[in-house]
Amino acid sequence: MSAVQGFDPRTAAPVGEPVPATAAAEVDAVVAAASRTWADTSPADRALALDAVADALDADCARLVEIADAETALGVPRLTGEVGRTTGQLRMFASLLRTGAHLNVVFSPGPPDVRRTRQAIGPVAVFSASNFPFAFSVAGGDTASALAAGCPVVVKAHEAHPRTSLAVAEILRRTLPEGVFALVTGREAGTALVRHPGIRAVGFTGSLAGGRALFDLAQGRPDPIPFYGELGSVNPVVVLPGASGVAEGYAASLTLGAGQFCTNPGLLFVPDDAVLLDEIAQAVGGTTAGPLLSPGIHRSYVDHTAAGPARVLATGTAGEGAWAVAPVVFATDAADFVARAESLTEETFGPSGLVVTYRDLDTLLAALEALPGSLTGSVHAGADDSATLKVAAILRTRVGRLVHNGWPTGVAVCWAMHHGGPWPASTAPAHTSVGTAAIDRWLVPIAYQDWPEHLLPPELRTDNPLGFPRTVQG
Amino acid sequence: MSAVQGFDPRTAAPVGEPVPATAAAEVDAVVAAASRTWADTSPADRALALDAVADALDADCARLVEIADAETALGVPRLTGEVGRTTGQLRMFASLLRTGAHLNVVFSPGPPDVRRTRQAIGPVAVFSASNFPFAFSVAGGDTASALAAGCPVVVKAHEAHPRTSLAVAEILRRTLPEGVFALVTGREAGTALVRHPGIRAVGFTGSLAGGRALFDLAQGRPDPIPFYGELGSVNPVVVLPGASGVAEGYAASLTLGAGQFCTNPGLLFVPDDAVLLDEIAQAVGGTTAGPLLSPGIHRSYVDHTAAGPARVLATGTAGEGAWAVAPVVFATDAADFVARAESLTEETFGPSGLVVTYRDLDTLLAALEALPGSLTGSVHAGADDSATLKVAAILRTRVGRLVHNGWPTGVAVCWAMHHGGPWPASTAPAHTSVGTAAIDRWLVPIAYQDWPEHLLPPELRTDNPLGFPRTVQG
Repeated sequence: MSAVQGFDPRTAAPVGEPVPATAAAEVDAVVAAASRTWADTSPADRALALDAVADALDADCARLVEIADAETALGVPRLTGEVGRTTGQLRMFASLLRTGAHLNVVFSPGPPDVRRTRQAIGPVAVFSASNFPFAFSVAGGDTASALAAGCPVVVKAHEAHPRTSLAVAEILRRTLPEGVFALVTGREAGTALVRHPGIRAVGFTGSLAGGRALFDLAQGRPDPIPFYGELGSVNPVVVLPGASGVAEGYAASLTLGAGQFCTNPGLLFVPDDAVLLDEIAQAVGGTTAGPLLSPGIHRSYVDHTAAGPARVLATGTAGEGAWAVAPVVFATDAADFVARAESLTEETFGPSGLVVTYRDLDTLLAALEALPGSLTGSVHAGADDSATLKVAAILRTRVGRLVHNGWPTGVAVCWAMHHGGPWPASTAPAHTSVGTAAIDRWLVPIAYQDWPEHLLPPELRTDNPLGFPRTVQG
Repeated sequence: MSAVQGFDPRTAAPVGEPVPATAAAEVDAVVAAASRTWADTSPADRALALDAVADALDADCARLVEIADAETALGVPRLTGEVGRTTGQLRMFASLLRTGAHLNVVFSPGPPDVRRTRQAIGPVAVFSASNFPFAFSVAGGDTASALAAGCPVVVKAHEAHPRTSLAVAEILRRTLPEGVFALVTGREAGTALVRHPGIRAVGFTGSLAGGRALFDLAQGRPDPIPFYGELGSVNPVVVLPGASGVAEGYAASLTLGAGQFCTNPGLLFVPDDAVLLDEIAQAVGGTTAGPLLSPGIHRSYVDHTAAGPARVLATGTAGEGAWAVAPVVFATDAADFVARAESLTEETFGPSGLVVTYRDLDTLLAALEALPGSLTGSVHAGADDSATLKVAAILRTRVGRLVHNGWPTGVAVCWAMHHGGPWPASTAPAHTSVGTAAIDRWLVPIAYQDWPEHLLPPELRTDNPLGFPRTVQG
């Protein structure tokens, strides 16, 4: 592809001129230009730089939202909120840098005297997601955490919002020092990045097929590099007997943002209760979904839902717009779910879900054992605590976050958040892409043994000039 | 292979009967039997179990050392020390469990209320190393840290010490609860383990070729799993002008344990100084090496050193024993090193090294840029601090531990230790296989959102019944 064209999901019409794709050969120049000094700046200086990026994005918020709305149709309120989330993330990492906690400094007095800190892993490639044109894209969480760690970042723009990507990249480039940030466009440039010897780690949010291909490339290098990918999640929600208020909450979570969230509740386990099923059908029947983000996502959704993995329980209404679709929920029972678990747990991106009915707790638990890895698992509990505990005991081996009496959509950006899980939720289950711990992906430990005081990095000096926290053995 | 025969490196004679290899089909039964309750035991109970294993190994130390000496010829003093290191590691992880620091508990009060802890990743496969029949083998650091994390462990015994492996495994099996530990033997069983859906992570210490093959298997699974491997390291040591006492230290480090350490100083960079080269040649010429561990290691050493990557600077004397070899040190200059860096930085396992001479600091720095990843980098400094800093600035991007005026052999088991580095030193550069942080490899985060107090794991309850440390946001 020699250029990437953005489209308006409301009209299917092109938005502006196509954005030229980056040739694979240009990727060499981009990586060669990656800063060799960014890693050596002080955490305080990097914090100032992150704050400056956040301020610049906030100052340009209205213009950025307008560009993104034309390419995504996500609407001004949601996109304005997303810019705020994006700048909030940048400032969160700036705050973290000022604490010095990210360095995880440990002293072992010895002998030998060993002192450990952490340093940037090197230049990082970040692949933007389609569904968060700001918060998981050019200046999103992967970029913010990698810049905070001291890594130069090369972002591969998502095809669904090329002009939004350019606009955000322009702000990053003029705010950050030379060589700290670059943008490439087009798939060819993306694969060249993952293969490039100068790239030391990859962050990715996207589909299982695309993510697996890039993961395989990264692991197949002569020198494999860490690949931090979020590839898919069906986010099981379990409704236990006696839970209340489920139907409306489910319909709202399923269709939020036209269902285009990695935490969309794709699987709902409910007691085999005609009244509850009817409530769910009514609630889903009352929903409307706006247009999907891209022709590819639209086509995939139409194909998946037309193929009909099970009987249709309810359909909502397609809203306005060329790529608008109707929400649809299918239903089957636990025995069928177990028998066809592999195909029934494939993620369908968009406002579609599968309701699985169960007769009794044992049937439910057997069905949960068939679940693949997901980002989240939710329980709507009744009065029986032991049932909740049994469900949680299985779910927690399948997911990275357990939600009680709530819905998985809406990921809080907080210190304790874990946004990860077993494959395919994450390619690296010990790591998160949301929250302060996201910085861990871009840092590697380095131990100094018997090193002279005056030649140590400041955080390792006995007099602790930066006042950073440290653990001392013994 | 249907059985694994151990040999005495002193005589090349078989030691005892061959140990039957585990059939690939038996691996299914072994993994199916892995405990589903070990992860739910309290850290305090797991600490007691680790201490009990350590006590049982100590009680049987003399017998274990005798078995291992027959298979490895490493000698009673070294092997007795290694049992102590092994039981020390087990007790270190027991101590860590009692602090609760391994759970890395974080509270974000919200709303939503999110509380994060860590849990065992699941059953783990551990591949033992040839060169540490205790400390990196059946009850070694990978096993100790994984058991501490709450993971059942299946160890694949190393072919070079099958009877030692059986003896240690017998102690683990009778000391630990059912299903917490198992041993398999033979390569076929090893590959079956890495492919098995029930195995959730792999620990490996060994060769680049063997490790790469298993890494590729783990990453090629339908559900790739973390593979924590230490595959090779040339451990560059840089001697700066004005450094003293280098020759004797180098010869001793190079030939310690017949050079069979992952931290063996394979590359020595020295000023082009005839006096120093002569001192090194004298010191190496005075060394003797005992027998290597296995016929494979012996053959590989003989082939590599016979091929002669550069001119011979010095040879020592082959000691007693069928597989004894002479230490040998080659020499070349920095320009040749840069030109042939890829082949000259291949690890030769055993008491062999390459001395690289440099004319001036710039030549040295250019040569260091050609280094691959290693576990360690060492600097013997002179009076010029700026030279030390320039060397360290390059080395720290290539290694996991920087040693000042010392030698890389002898890895201190302490909290601050980092035993890892860029590929091929480690397949997962953010992680270590030595020190308390080794437990991080076997734990995955789990966040509880709005979960009722009385159903939370104890470390996440507000009243903190276990008294474990926690970070609270805000």
